Amino acid sequence: MSGGQALRLSRLVRAAAAVIGSRYLRPGQLQLHRRLALLAGGGLAATLAFPSVLAASKPDWMAEPISGYEGVKGDDIKARMEAMIMQVQADFCRALEQEEADGSVGSAPVKFKVDRWIRKEGGGGITCVMQEGEVFEKAGVNISVVHGHLPPAAVAQMRARGKQMGEGVLPFTALGISSVIHPRNPMIPTIHFNYRYFEVQEPNGECQWWFGGGTDLTPYYLDENDVRHFHGTLKKACDKHNAKLYPKFKAWCDDYFNVTHRGERRGVGGIFFDDFDEPNQEKAFEFVTSCANSVVPSYVPLVKKHKKDGYGYAERQWQLLRRGRYVEFNLIYDRGTKFGLYTPGARYESILMSLPLTARWEYMHAPEPGSKEAKLTEILKNPKDWI
Amino acid sequence: MSGGQALRLSRLVRAAAAVIGSRYLRPGQLQLHRRLALLAGGGLAATLAFPSVLAASKPDWMAEPISGYEGVKGDDIKARMEAMIMQVQADFCRALEQEEADGSVGSAPVKFKVDRWIRKEGGGGITCVMQEGEVFEKAGVNISVVHGHLPPAAVAQMRARGKQMGEGVLPFTALGISSVIHPRNPMIPTIHFNYRYFEVQEPNGECQWWFGGGTDLTPYYLDENDVRHFHGTLKKACDKHNAKLYPKFKAWCDDYFNVTHRGERRGVGGIFFDDFDEPNQEKAFEFVTSCANSVVPSYVPLVKKHKKDGYGYAERQWQLLRRGRYVEFNLIYDRGTKFGLYTPGARYESILMSLPLTARWEYMHAPEPGSKEAKLTEILKNPKDWI
Repeated sequence: MSGGQALRLSRLVRAAAAVIGSRYLRPGQLQLHRRLALLAGGGLAATLAFPSVLAASKPDWMAEPISGYEGVKGDDIKARMEAMIMQVQADFCRALEQEEADGSVGSAPVKFKVDRWIRKEGGGGITCVMQEGEVFEKAGVNISVVHGHLPPAAVAQMRARGKQMGEGVLPFTALGISSVIHPRNPMIPTIHFNYRYFEVQEPNGECQWWFGGGTDLTPYYLDENDVRHFHGTLKKACDKHNAKLYPKFKAWCDDYFNVTHRGERRGVGGIFFDDFDEPNQEKAFEFVTSCANSVVPSYVPLVKKHKKDGYGYAERQWQLLRRGRYVEFNLIYDRGTKFGLYTPGARYESILMSLPLTARWEYMHAPEPGSKEAKLTEILKNPKDWI
Repeated sequence: MSGGQALRLSRLVRAAAAVIGSRYLRPGQLQLHRRLALLAGGGLAATLAFPSVLAASKPDWMAEPISGYEGVKGDDIKARMEAMIMQVQADFCRALEQEEADGSVGSAPVKFKVDRWIRKEGGGGITCVMQEGEVFEKAGVNISVVHGHLPPAAVAQMRARGKQMGEGVLPFTALGISSVIHPRNPMIPTIHFNYRYFEVQEPNGECQWWFGGGTDLTPYYLDENDVRHFHGTLKKACDKHNAKLYPKFKAWCDDYFNVTHRGERRGVGGIFFDDFDEPNQEKAFEFVTSCANSVVPSYVPLVKKHKKDGYGYAERQWQLLRRGRYVEFNLIYDRGTKFGLYTPGARYESILMSLPLTARWEYMHAPEPGSKEAKLTEILKNPKDWI
């Protein structure tokens, strides 16, 4: 197949996706896209040092994947996962940029700053951050693709979690996407999501793998319709695969995002899971892809709905205080942040991208009984079912 | 001795202290004061349910001690430590209130709010917080006096630190004072100090005890004369006891207040120590008292010097960013915060009183090369000797 043919084929795939009307490729589409790209690129890579004829067929991602465009074309699960999170990053970033542009009264709406970084111990990442926008005060969407060797302490911790692991220093790969969005308007909730794949090579040649992730919402003011829309979208994504998943992962989410010392949840939850490997790798990947593709439809309508809402000084102060508690959760309890910061050579700027631009702590702050702030607090202390 | 005699005697002690010219009672004075008060109060407590005649002889503390006025009169080290930290709390709070009143253009300068709280598991505390002052954006000075039983995990942790401890659930007492001051003007540094006594009862009847603590400074802009004054005051307090203490505890401080993931210290240090029990309990207590009494003279002159300094938006933003890193240290690394928050029934409001009213995080912020901000950062990355 010539470069021209490859280009036409690839355009065909993109056109087909456009006809289906979704900016988010479904697993099947992604696979087709990858296979075509593989067919197209396979013969060329050997002959062209700079395969410029392929440029037009490259997906419209935020940057070149850490494994390179060639590296994400294989049928290997790592390549497919990397291609999937690249697409989710691009879709989510572009959707937020669109909201920023729509709301902008300035001449040049804020866009994501794209940082592609390489980790000297192996792998790297693509960190996209938007700061001081009119709609988004701080928005971060980070991909990381990390190869290395698990230190014995990490292996011991995984064994304690029930993983059967061999002795010694084990080669691993971790790749995932993680994002936290802090809007400016207190009527728009904060969203967090994270989808990841983890693989460890055992001394006996076996490979241990699992997926983890989740999406959760942290409102400053409670709009029950928002929460039902959000949970409903996640439930639909889960139900496509197995009706048992949503209730299980909803409860897991409420349990995980607990600011223990305050006896309150970080927000109104969503879904959370780890060590997920059922019923097989293909199906597990499809499930995670469904969840990741549900981020935009679960959240962007809430941004649209509330970005022009009025608010005053009191609502802004409440938002800042709640953000303080978000910081408490992330720095004291969050496993991902801890794992990240304690890893040698950690890119702390990408890990701490989750922190808000501004936050506030007042001694003994308590909302007025009967107020909207008290109503939110009540829900955070007693999580409920939304569907 | 009659109530009238007791009153006169107590006034005499206070007059004597005033003549000496120090608002900070030295250990000997404290002991004298306590003995006279014991003589004065001993006979009366049995006959008077409300010993109102004694009120005039009570020290001018922020609240009644957790062990009661009677409870801090004994010669027991716990009583003496509690009386000492009560006095340091009162001295420091009053000195800060004075700075607030002197700088105030409003009619009612902000004062400390005093919260005396009882812990249902044993003991309690006195938390003094001043918020939204003209000079101090947030200032907290907390005393806690906690009795209880060490859970086996805590005993294991102490054994790992080299403590010889018996098996099982051991009765303990922890009492101390802890304070963090966040001034509004970025030219005034933040100060933190903490002095504490810890005692564990062994099953064999023996008692393990030690002191810990330290004082350290976190400037936003570097004024070398300030830092020299600060370190000089601490060194003088240490040198009275043993010339080896300051260099050892200065280095320990630089080592402890390390924001590991950023490779920078929290501030310009001071002194820090733990497990201190040399050469004996009496001398160790005198040393800790010297350190605690050096807080006001080490810090208040810096507040006086800088509280009218001019600053602009850029300096304020830098202060907020640096405060974000203060939050990172406190929530990720600080042992005291962790020990506090993980203790069942923790009074988290008192523990988190150390957090600033406002803080900020910007992705990849780096000061302009050659700027004042870069000069501070350089010192934080490479701590130096100041004396």
